[in-house]
Amino acid sequence: MAAAGWPVCAQSLKGVILDMCGVLYDSGDGDGVAIPGSIEAVQRLKRSDLQLRFCTNETQASRDRFVAKLQRLGFDISVKEVFSPAPAAVSVLKERGLRPHLLVYDGLLPEFEGLDQTNPNCVVIGDAAEKFSYENLNDAFRVLIGLDKPLLFSLGQGRYYKETDGLKLDVGVYMKALEYACDVKAQVIGKPSPTFFQSVLNDMGIQPHEALMIGDDLVNDVGGAQSCGMMGVQVRTGKYRASDERHSSVRADGTEDNLSRAVDLLLHHRGQ
Amino acid sequence: MAAAGWPVCAQSLKGVILDMCGVLYDSGDGDGVAIPGSIEAVQRLKRSDLQLRFCTNETQASRDRFVAKLQRLGFDISVKEVFSPAPAAVSVLKERGLRPHLLVYDGLLPEFEGLDQTNPNCVVIGDAAEKFSYENLNDAFRVLIGLDKPLLFSLGQGRYYKETDGLKLDVGVYMKALEYACDVKAQVIGKPSPTFFQSVLNDMGIQPHEALMIGDDLVNDVGGAQSCGMMGVQVRTGKYRASDERHSSVRADGTEDNLSRAVDLLLHHRGQ
Repeated sequence: MAAAGWPVCAQSLKGVILDMCGVLYDSGDGDGVAIPGSIEAVQRLKRSDLQLRFCTNETQASRDRFVAKLQRLGFDISVKEVFSPAPAAVSVLKERGLRPHLLVYDGLLPEFEGLDQTNPNCVVIGDAAEKFSYENLNDAFRVLIGLDKPLLFSLGQGRYYKETDGLKLDVGVYMKALEYACDVKAQVIGKPSPTFFQSVLNDMGIQPHEALMIGDDLVNDVGGAQSCGMMGVQVRTGKYRASDERHSSVRADGTEDNLSRAVDLLLHHRGQ
Repeated sequence: MAAAGWPVCAQSLKGVILDMCGVLYDSGDGDGVAIPGSIEAVQRLKRSDLQLRFCTNETQASRDRFVAKLQRLGFDISVKEVFSPAPAAVSVLKERGLRPHLLVYDGLLPEFEGLDQTNPNCVVIGDAAEKFSYENLNDAFRVLIGLDKPLLFSLGQGRYYKETDGLKLDVGVYMKALEYACDVKAQVIGKPSPTFFQSVLNDMGIQPHEALMIGDDLVNDVGGAQSCGMMGVQVRTGKYRASDERHSSVRADGTEDNLSRAVDLLLHHRGQ
């Protein structure tokens, strides 16, 4: 579908899901900075007849603290509207009666409070950054290899991300390391997992074809949403690269300069 | 071929290659301990008409220090008879005019002295153990991702090994991590790389079908040697596991209780 055409097909939508980092704001020192026009774009979506949810793979802070940061930046957003991997993982662990060994950032630990973590029967890894020491990774490995059937959950599968001081290895790299060490396949919780997207759709009570995902990550946001039957639009902010528009396997339903422009087109075609 | 039959086929051999850890000795506190009968087995091979070389993936110490350890344990062995990944890597780097960024154990650094390591255009990783910190892995990653064509060499591809205090992650795990981060395939130096085995054969001046590899690692020793056209016999010491004898893809030409027994059979069938 040509980029110009997507808003026409978006007339029958009932809900929109927004990625956060790189769409709403750019991370950096302190809270980072809002991307111009994004605060207003969220306000306009909230005033429209569309449902709105936010979906992130952020795992360095608990959802409460993460949302508080967005509110400080000026966004009209609440915790119940935000879907992130840690709460999704907690649901899975509770449902299956699992006791996790956690290898996650300290800021994420509060999400897992209340879960039995004695005598662990699975491992959960998130973007642990400096906590990915040899000793900590080896500890997680020993738990896994000691299980009859090693069970590994990974909060996302990113390769790397950019911070002000340069590129940093993301959780997916350590997921691959443990997969190889134990000859297992990790269960990814977060984008682009269909289960994760489906939980957002369930919360809105709508079908995939009634939803649009807007993100800066062609594979995890756009491709992941499309795999679930949703529309996926990419914005040219955040981790967008020009080469994304010539990607061999994922083709966005539309590509717009930023969230503000995407929301303009969407609401205009809905007569709002 | 039935296990009992291999020594018959070994009558035309001209050379033997021995794996070291798990065949000659078991590692542990201090120098470790010689496996009963192995010291004498090496002596008998040296007195025979067969050529003898040693082939290890050990990368925590320089070859000089490693061989000195074996000598202290009582083995008749010299540096020039031992093939290990680091000297092989140095040859490749020199040949191709490469300047490595090293992520290896401190004890291995002397092997790389004399190589230009400024403005690196490749990364070499070995079993760095505690040096595999997030920061060090991230530094190696940044070098790789900054190259036009990331070039990664891995000294072996082991998953894990056993020390007195438990299992420890090996270099292969971090190789997989960097492969995923940079979307590259590492070049493995050491067993089971055919180039590595071929360098040992070249040193003896013999053809693959004239050589026998004896090791405790079914995949890297036996399978690796067989892939090069050599015979491969596994010993039931070191990391041998009973399940190896039912392995889906690698089948040893013979399986013997230990090196002493394998050498008995080999020399007996050669009338020595």
